[in-house]
Amino acid sequence: MEYQERIDHLQRRLRRAGIDALLVARPENRRYLSGYGGGDHGIEESSGVLLLPARGQLRLLTDFRFQLQAQREVPWAEVELYPKGLIALLATLLPKLGVKRLAFESRYTLHATAARMEKTLGAKGVELVAVRPWLEEMRAVKSEEEIALIRRAVRLNEEVFQEIHAAIGSFSSEIEVSLAVEAAMRRRGAAGPSFATIVASGDNAALPHAVPSASPLLPHRPLTIDMGLILDGYCSDMTRTFVIGEADERYIQLHRVVRRAMLAGMAAIRPGVPCREVDRAARRVIADTGYGDCFGHSLGHGVGLAVHEEPRLSSRNRRVLKAGMVVTVEPGIYVPGWGGIRLENMVVVRPDGCEDLNRDTTWLDL
Amino acid sequence: MEYQERIDHLQRRLRRAGIDALLVARPENRRYLSGYGGGDHGIEESSGVLLLPARGQLRLLTDFRFQLQAQREVPWAEVELYPKGLIALLATLLPKLGVKRLAFESRYTLHATAARMEKTLGAKGVELVAVRPWLEEMRAVKSEEEIALIRRAVRLNEEVFQEIHAAIGSFSSEIEVSLAVEAAMRRRGAAGPSFATIVASGDNAALPHAVPSASPLLPHRPLTIDMGLILDGYCSDMTRTFVIGEADERYIQLHRVVRRAMLAGMAAIRPGVPCREVDRAARRVIADTGYGDCFGHSLGHGVGLAVHEEPRLSSRNRRVLKAGMVVTVEPGIYVPGWGGIRLENMVVVRPDGCEDLNRDTTWLDL
Repeated sequence: MEYQERIDHLQRRLRRAGIDALLVARPENRRYLSGYGGGDHGIEESSGVLLLPARGQLRLLTDFRFQLQAQREVPWAEVELYPKGLIALLATLLPKLGVKRLAFESRYTLHATAARMEKTLGAKGVELVAVRPWLEEMRAVKSEEEIALIRRAVRLNEEVFQEIHAAIGSFSSEIEVSLAVEAAMRRRGAAGPSFATIVASGDNAALPHAVPSASPLLPHRPLTIDMGLILDGYCSDMTRTFVIGEADERYIQLHRVVRRAMLAGMAAIRPGVPCREVDRAARRVIADTGYGDCFGHSLGHGVGLAVHEEPRLSSRNRRVLKAGMVVTVEPGIYVPGWGGIRLENMVVVRPDGCEDLNRDTTWLDL
Repeated sequence: MEYQERIDHLQRRLRRAGIDALLVARPENRRYLSGYGGGDHGIEESSGVLLLPARGQLRLLTDFRFQLQAQREVPWAEVELYPKGLIALLATLLPKLGVKRLAFESRYTLHATAARMEKTLGAKGVELVAVRPWLEEMRAVKSEEEIALIRRAVRLNEEVFQEIHAAIGSFSSEIEVSLAVEAAMRRRGAAGPSFATIVASGDNAALPHAVPSASPLLPHRPLTIDMGLILDGYCSDMTRTFVIGEADERYIQLHRVVRRAMLAGMAAIRPGVPCREVDRAARRVIADTGYGDCFGHSLGHGVGLAVHEEPRLSSRNRRVLKAGMVVTVEPGIYVPGWGGIRLENMVVVRPDGCEDLNRDTTWLDL
C-alpha cells in the first residue's frame, strides 16, 4: 500500500500549516496511513493512536493489549505503550519531540478528551489545533489499487448474497437469514460484516434500519436484505428487495419506481456535480409518482475503509464529486403497514460518468 | 422498568444545578431513561437523542429512519424529527421551551459537535454546560430488577458456552467456533453478542484481544473463549480458557495461578473498597509467581446496558465500590509464543462481599 506516499503528502500539509504533529485516532485513518488494523470498541476504547510529526518517523501509541499486533502490522513505525494513558504519554513525549502545535481530529475526539488534552498539554506549552478533516478528504478519492480492493469486497458480497438468495426458501426466519449471510462472509474470507446485516420481511421492510427478528419470511411480501462485508480492510454495501413467490401489482410498480430512481441517480453522477444534485435526480423520480414522503433518507454515502464515509449524497451537501470517489446509490420507498423497497449498488466516479461496481442483476428481475 | 423514577431523580438534579434541560446522546443512557433501543452506527451516526427538561415531558429527537421504532418503544414521549439535523431543530426548539442552560454529555459528544452547538445555540442565547456523567453514575449501581435481567444474560451466555464446549472437538477453526457461538446466542433469543467473540488457540491466546482466525484449534494448547451477549438490553461477559486433550504441567500451573488471582479479586470486593485495591489483590497473586509483566490489562469493568461501563477495576481508579454494582473479574497471563490464560466471571457487589453471577464450573476443572 501507498503508506509512505500518503504520509509524505500529509507531512507537507502539516508543514505548510505550521503544525508540528498530527494525532490520528480514527481507526480508518490509522489504517490508511499505516496499515494498523487494531479494532476499537467504540470511540471510548481505542486500540491506539498515530502520532505523525511534520518531519520524521511515524509513531504508534497503544497499550499492552495491542502491542504484539501493532509491532507485527507496522514494523516500520516506533510502537510506544501508554500504561498511564495516552495523555500522560503525550505530556512527556511531545516536549521531547519539540512539538508546540499539535493538530487533533476534532470530529473524532470527545469534548471531554479535548478539554483534558488542552489542560494537561497546555501546561507543557503545547497548543492544540482543530484542523480540517484532511485524512477523510484524502480517503474520499480512491486510488486504482484501493478501487481494486473495493471491487473484490463488492464481488464477495454478491457471491454471498447469491448463495443466500438461491436458498431463500429454506430459511425459517429473518434471524436465520442474517446468521447464514454473516457465516458465509466469514467462511469466504471476509473479516466480518461491515454493519449489522438487515433482513426485513413484510411490515419490517418499512423500517429502513430494521433489526432481524424471529419472524418467518412472508411469501408475496417485500423482503429487504441490506448487507456488506469487510475484506482486507475495505467495505462493501448492497441492498436488494425481492419477493418470495409471486409479487403483486403494487410491489412491481413500486419496485420499478425505485429502480428508475437508482438509475437516475447513477446517470447524474460525474466529476464536478454537487452531491445534492445526485440526490435530487433520484428523489425527483420518486416524488413524481407521489411517494416523495416515503423516501426520508439520503440517497447514498461514500464507502472505503469505512462503510459510511465522505462524500454523502444528501440534499444538503453542496460539495462536488471527484473522479475516484466511491459511493452507494440507494433510494427507497417505505410504506408503514405494507413494507418497503430499497435497492443499492456501489459506483466509482469516473471522468465521464460512473462505473457500477455491482454485477448482480436480481434488482432488474421485475 | 423504573423510567419515571429515574427521570424524576435526574430532573431534581437538573433543577438543583440550575440547568434547564439535558441532552442525552449515549445509546445506553437513552435506553436507561426511556427504553428506546435504537442502534447507533458509532458516535457519528446517531439514532436519536433525548431532551430531558428540568420540568415537564421527555422528548425523543430522531430522524425519519427511526421514527416508527421511536414511537413504538417510547409511546409516552413526544417524538420529533430533525430533517435538517439535530442542531437546527434545537435552535428552534430550545427557545420555545425557554431553555437557557443546556447540559450535554461531554464524554459522549464530539469536540466538533460541541463547537457547532456552542456557536449555533449560543447565538440563540443558550449556554452549554458540561456536567458530571450523572447517568453513568446512576447506571453503575443496579436495582434488583436490573440484576435479575443481568443474571438472565449471564445464564444464557453460559448455556451457549456449555453447548459449544461440549462439542469443541467438532470445530475446524477459531472462526467456526465464533460463528457457532454467535448463532447459538441469536437462536436462544439474544439480540446478539455484546462484543466480537474472541476465540484464540495456541499462540493467538497470547493476544488479549485476538481476532478469530481460520487456524484450527490446537490440541494440548490453551484455547481462550471470551464471549458475551445482549438479552433484553443487558449484557453478559465471560471468559474461559481450557485445553483440548491433555494439559501439560506448565498450563496447569498457570491456570491455577490465574484462578487464584480471580478468587483473590473476588474476595477483595465489598462496598467501600477502592476499585484499585481489588485490582491490586488479584495482581499480587500473579506478581508473586513471577508473571506480573504478563498481566498488562485491568482486572475488570462494570457491566450493564453497556458491556464496558463504570466502575473500572483498574490500578488507577480510587473510587469505591457500592452495593449493587456489577463487575467482571478477569485476570490473565499472556506469554508471547506460548499462549495465554484468562478467566472471567461477573459478580454483584453485596453488603458484605460479592455474589458470583456465574454457575459454569469449567474454570475449576484443573
